[in-house]
Amino acid sequence: MSGQQRRVAGKRLKRIDGIGKVTGKHVYASDFALPGMLFGKVLRSSEAHARIVRLDVSKAAALAGVRCVLTAKDIPQIRFGTAIKDRTMLAEGEVRFRGEAIAAVAATSLEVAEAAVRAIEIEYEPLPAVFDPEQALQPGAPLVHAGWSDYQALPVFDRDGNISGRSSMGSGDTAAGFAQSHRIYEHRFTTQHVHPGYTEPRTAIASWDGNGDVSVWSNTQLPFDMKNMLAEVLDLPANKVRVIVPGIGGGFGGKLRVGVEHFAAWLARKSKRPVKVMTTSEEELTDAYPRQPTVVTLKTGVSRDGLLLAREGKVILDCGAFANSGPATAAIALQVLAGPYRSPNLAFEGIAVYTNKGSTGSFRAPAGPMANFAVESQIDLIADDLGIDPLELRLRNVYREGDRGPAGETLTSISIEECLRKAAAAIGWTQRKPGAGRGKGIACSWWLTTGGSSGVYVKINPDGTVTVVSGAVELGSGAMTGAAQILAEELGVDLTDINATDVDTHVSPYDYGAQGSRTAFSVGNACIAAAKDLRRQIGELVAPLWNVAPDSVRLEGKGVVSGNKRMSLAEVAGLSQRTGGGLISHGTAIQPMPVFDPNRVKNHPLPAWTSHSFHAHAVDLSVDDVTGEVSINRYVVAQDVGFAINPTYIEGQIEGGVAQGIGQALSEEIVYDGGRVLNANLTDYKMPTMMDMPRVECILIEKPSVNGPYGAKGVGEPPCIQPPAAIANAIAVATGIRVQALPITAEKIALARLKDGD
Amino acid sequence: MSGQQRRVAGKRLKRIDGIGKVTGKHVYASDFALPGMLFGKVLRSSEAHARIVRLDVSKAAALAGVRCVLTAKDIPQIRFGTAIKDRTMLAEGEVRFRGEAIAAVAATSLEVAEAAVRAIEIEYEPLPAVFDPEQALQPGAPLVHAGWSDYQALPVFDRDGNISGRSSMGSGDTAAGFAQSHRIYEHRFTTQHVHPGYTEPRTAIASWDGNGDVSVWSNTQLPFDMKNMLAEVLDLPANKVRVIVPGIGGGFGGKLRVGVEHFAAWLARKSKRPVKVMTTSEEELTDAYPRQPTVVTLKTGVSRDGLLLAREGKVILDCGAFANSGPATAAIALQVLAGPYRSPNLAFEGIAVYTNKGSTGSFRAPAGPMANFAVESQIDLIADDLGIDPLELRLRNVYREGDRGPAGETLTSISIEECLRKAAAAIGWTQRKPGAGRGKGIACSWWLTTGGSSGVYVKINPDGTVTVVSGAVELGSGAMTGAAQILAEELGVDLTDINATDVDTHVSPYDYGAQGSRTAFSVGNACIAAAKDLRRQIGELVAPLWNVAPDSVRLEGKGVVSGNKRMSLAEVAGLSQRTGGGLISHGTAIQPMPVFDPNRVKNHPLPAWTSHSFHAHAVDLSVDDVTGEVSINRYVVAQDVGFAINPTYIEGQIEGGVAQGIGQALSEEIVYDGGRVLNANLTDYKMPTMMDMPRVECILIEKPSVNGPYGAKGVGEPPCIQPPAAIANAIAVATGIRVQALPITAEKIALARLKDGD
Repeated sequence: MSGQQRRVAGKRLKRIDGIGKVTGKHVYASDFALPGMLFGKVLRSSEAHARIVRLDVSKAAALAGVRCVLTAKDIPQIRFGTAIKDRTMLAEGEVRFRGEAIAAVAATSLEVAEAAVRAIEIEYEPLPAVFDPEQALQPGAPLVHAGWSDYQALPVFDRDGNISGRSSMGSGDTAAGFAQSHRIYEHRFTTQHVHPGYTEPRTAIASWDGNGDVSVWSNTQLPFDMKNMLAEVLDLPANKVRVIVPGIGGGFGGKLRVGVEHFAAWLARKSKRPVKVMTTSEEELTDAYPRQPTVVTLKTGVSRDGLLLAREGKVILDCGAFANSGPATAAIALQVLAGPYRSPNLAFEGIAVYTNKGSTGSFRAPAGPMANFAVESQIDLIADDLGIDPLELRLRNVYREGDRGPAGETLTSISIEECLRKAAAAIGWTQRKPGAGRGKGIACSWWLTTGGSSGVYVKINPDGTVTVVSGAVELGSGAMTGAAQILAEELGVDLTDINATDVDTHVSPYDYGAQGSRTAFSVGNACIAAAKDLRRQIGELVAPLWNVAPDSVRLEGKGVVSGNKRMSLAEVAGLSQRTGGGLISHGTAIQPMPVFDPNRVKNHPLPAWTSHSFHAHAVDLSVDDVTGEVSINRYVVAQDVGFAINPTYIEGQIEGGVAQGIGQALSEEIVYDGGRVLNANLTDYKMPTMMDMPRVECILIEKPSVNGPYGAKGVGEPPCIQPPAAIANAIAVATGIRVQALPITAEKIALARLKDGD
Repeated sequence: MSGQQRRVAGKRLKRIDGIGKVTGKHVYASDFALPGMLFGKVLRSSEAHARIVRLDVSKAAALAGVRCVLTAKDIPQIRFGTAIKDRTMLAEGEVRFRGEAIAAVAATSLEVAEAAVRAIEIEYEPLPAVFDPEQALQPGAPLVHAGWSDYQALPVFDRDGNISGRSSMGSGDTAAGFAQSHRIYEHRFTTQHVHPGYTEPRTAIASWDGNGDVSVWSNTQLPFDMKNMLAEVLDLPANKVRVIVPGIGGGFGGKLRVGVEHFAAWLARKSKRPVKVMTTSEEELTDAYPRQPTVVTLKTGVSRDGLLLAREGKVILDCGAFANSGPATAAIALQVLAGPYRSPNLAFEGIAVYTNKGSTGSFRAPAGPMANFAVESQIDLIADDLGIDPLELRLRNVYREGDRGPAGETLTSISIEECLRKAAAAIGWTQRKPGAGRGKGIACSWWLTTGGSSGVYVKINPDGTVTVVSGAVELGSGAMTGAAQILAEELGVDLTDINATDVDTHVSPYDYGAQGSRTAFSVGNACIAAAKDLRRQIGELVAPLWNVAPDSVRLEGKGVVSGNKRMSLAEVAGLSQRTGGGLISHGTAIQPMPVFDPNRVKNHPLPAWTSHSFHAHAVDLSVDDVTGEVSINRYVVAQDVGFAINPTYIEGQIEGGVAQGIGQALSEEIVYDGGRVLNANLTDYKMPTMMDMPRVECILIEKPSVNGPYGAKGVGEPPCIQPPAAIANAIAVATGIRVQALPITAEKIALARLKDGD
């Protein structure tokens, strides 16, 4: 397939799943219902750390309409978790955060289920708690998990006490580097809990069949992980658990892990009826998978002309009461700290810490905004101090083609300079402070395209239309449309000829899941593999009929062609059904692992990045001189996407990511008072709305990757990484105030002005 | 896989779908429901042939709860049909049988839908009708389809006037053969309409999604045919139609073609709500796919020692108002007439005829019992006349290994002599008339294993369990358990490690369908192909790790083995997911077409049989000397199954087939008075019950086929072929009365006694 004459890939075509979604007819998991289903609700702890002294469900169980009440005593206590198996479905004896599940109820209506939860009687005996991750690291701090050493865990991480995982990355000799430095800068930055903000609450409907198999309809991003996790928690073989994703109203990493699926499955098993469980906003803001808060400290030594001679950094990441992806996120932070900058001497450490707060997870670009906020804020601080333009300072330090990355891997397809120059030119960088209270900021980063394998089945129907069965969920990003565009290109059909099915783990081929910016990339590659196999099958079928060489057979214009011979794809598909199994193929793809130096990266699950992308954000904003309120005038993103499979949906991804980044930069925070969330509702938890959003100007740069379909790179996660740093840098230019703790609320700016004696 | 050491195949293991079915928890299509669904009902013609003069649905549409009323005016009139596209979903202007659909209604309850059907006003103008197939062939008979010549049809059949299809088979010179004959016998036999008698009514639930795609849950036997047929009738591309078979309570060929799926789909499309439509017993007995009535005439010339020197035969088959599979059934009758007997001179003709009666179809072993009843009754009549033992006469004439079949194909794996001898020995043939009013009869036949391709996806889960996704429906026969036993054997796992998914045309690989005794045979072969590919994948995965040759790697004991190296299948599956797409394969299988002489068979869709089976039935019965009631004392079936994949379920197939055959022999008949069915209910339509059934003694003969998995042959259809002939022959021995018109009711025997002056 030559790059020059693409008919479908690269075009701004409409989404294959679009009409149902814009007309409101699409059935999401939250819309899904089964006849006769019950409604499940969960009793959650009102204490941050306590022993359960008494738990009496008798009044709840006696309510009319209640079909099942479960406590830890009623089900096997099977520990589960991503990095560490540290959590049970229902707390047994001890609760570790306010919001932890203690009992679950199924009833004939939601109202009865809620009444039953309220009717459960419980008494606690408080235990010492710890809420601050730095305090949790102190000797003698209360242990969140007294029994941690017995828990099963992934061996890769180094763990101890309240530390759920510790990773490190280093090269050269930072002490020597600092000794050579012209100046050394030390800064501390903090970031907050941020909810992924998906539109659709986490939902699951479970139903058991007569053979003792369970089907779970859920809006999970990772149906195959979910299936294996449920098999574990339900103590079943994996082939007796079926996870189906009818539709998912956003995920952003917040739907990677079990939400309410295990409650629905156990309640349905015990009540012998289908059960639906859906979270409330309060549950979302107390027991979901928000972005972990972090404390990032950086020590950077530079030469007189601003080259980064030595860099030390530490990320302390508060993963709450259960580790989940905290250890991995703390590890990924190290690459974000490192890139996209050269430095001969590096020493970075990432530590994930337990506290008695709600669980956390892998929100879009996990670790990205936290580490990038620190690095890119400090770059501006250094530039200001050295009197070098921040853009210029960046350009002096960024990676060049063929450089070694932090793990010693060879970096290729590097476009960071182009991203920076184009973003700066678009924002009008030469005039950084166009007026009073107004300023421009820039920030850049790099990111990976996550690996893992993808599989598709592709079937050509006897009328020439095509059905693709993938194990990857369409999160709403358009990724499956992108993959279908690649498939249409390869098969010589139109995008409208292709449909994609929902994921059903019983029948879909395995996929590593809709995570890590990999879906269009990886499913697209699987489609190329499947199409290649179909071309081979078609060649072998028609070559003897036409007396031509099988490899002379091409697919074009919904037909099969060799020389002046031609059959429609429909005819060939019909012929194949009559004479064989039909035109069906299974394509798989997996990214190769890059070669890296294992001495540079320790205790890290993802030591070197593949098919990395580069990106720069530039912002022009104004700050109200009384209230401190920030208004964004213009926002520019220059992002290297490798190849823009569908520019429209990539721009959609960029706009959405910037919106989430602006939220993290300026307004969003799950506010804890000790162990209590003060703003567990969507009025007080302030996400940006359409009215808060600037127009986002997207500059798509196409520096082809080696591994991606037609050179594409992952595009989904990066747009939310740089807004906090770019905005912080612009605010500093506009106001002279440097805020090092996210979110940069109007209040913080106004208070800082007061402190500065404004 | 050597035949000697099988662990799973050939064993009497429990069904993989058994527990749900015996506990009543399995969800069949008729159990399936969607939230908010409407109920559909159909207005049916009360006239056999008439013009519709007035049709007023206004009162029906005005009823509270009615959401949609459809007549032919409301939808495009798209003709559909198997052999001939001669039918529309709703009659337009003209009705052709009592029971033809005229309007369809969807309402919020079944009661309202029924009231709405009653509220539709209709006036007819009668047209001349024809009910008898022989009369329909007369010049000047009313034409059932005046416009037949414009209909699209399969080109294979010869059609004309009321003849919907005509096929012929011949060899040698029958005139010369008759000239050489010692005696010539001419007989006429008739058979009746018999309903397949599946437990579950035909049911469909249709639901349209936001993208304009339709999902139809149905108990169809042929989901892929159904999908294509619905795409046609709904005027949609095939990839927008999804057919899912949640479970099917028996089919027996009666659920091959569209039942109520098109009504559900159109009503759902127009009402914008899911719609369920399910047939009543009355609808089943007036507009379903019962076995066609036939008139069979035979002329047979024999030598002095009983060799069949010349045979002529004609089957006139009454297919009712629409052709459906009538032309193909009339063609298949020719092979049944021919076999299992050698004869140098043959001339057979099969004619399918339109009449103004209900439609008919391909009930289990289509054409089998009708043609076999004639042939095997006549053999006994000839034997009696010649004074030769009927068993001996058969043995003198049956096929021998290497003989030519009726299409000139070479016959192999012939076991008819063994079947006859074993059945005769078991029934105690030496004493054919053990007492007054008691007699023994025997009948034999052959049958094919239908071809067409089957595909499976096989996935090995990371815990070592196995999921198989097939496009073939489990009809209740245990065929999918048989296929799974073969898969378990090939993969070195237990049967309980395997589960099979429901068929869903979007995701399942193509399969020619659960018909023609092919499911275990063909899906089993596909499983062997899939397992072979998995062994290759596994070999390529572990060989480099172990430094062994890939083809040294074996699968056994749920593990992967080479020399003294071993890994569990679970470990290998997990490794494959991490490093590739997981252990997934697509296996397909199709039977090769036999070589035949095209001059011998004309206008025939299935000119030569493959993987044929042989079978003999023997019965010992008593006839009440007053009432004529028949009591079966013993029933023996000797059937060549090639290889008994699971003897228990094969015996189940034999018992069920014999029950249906006994019903056709003795009691079942859809009784027409002109165009009106007199017994359209399950009280007056008399199927045998458990109390009427003798114990069936099964003798499984294993003469391996060339094409079947481990030598298996199709087993599902044959058991219902011979009961009418075997029973008729035994009644003749017991009473001296030869009944040549099925069913042989007590009344017919008693009346014949009166005529004989008894």
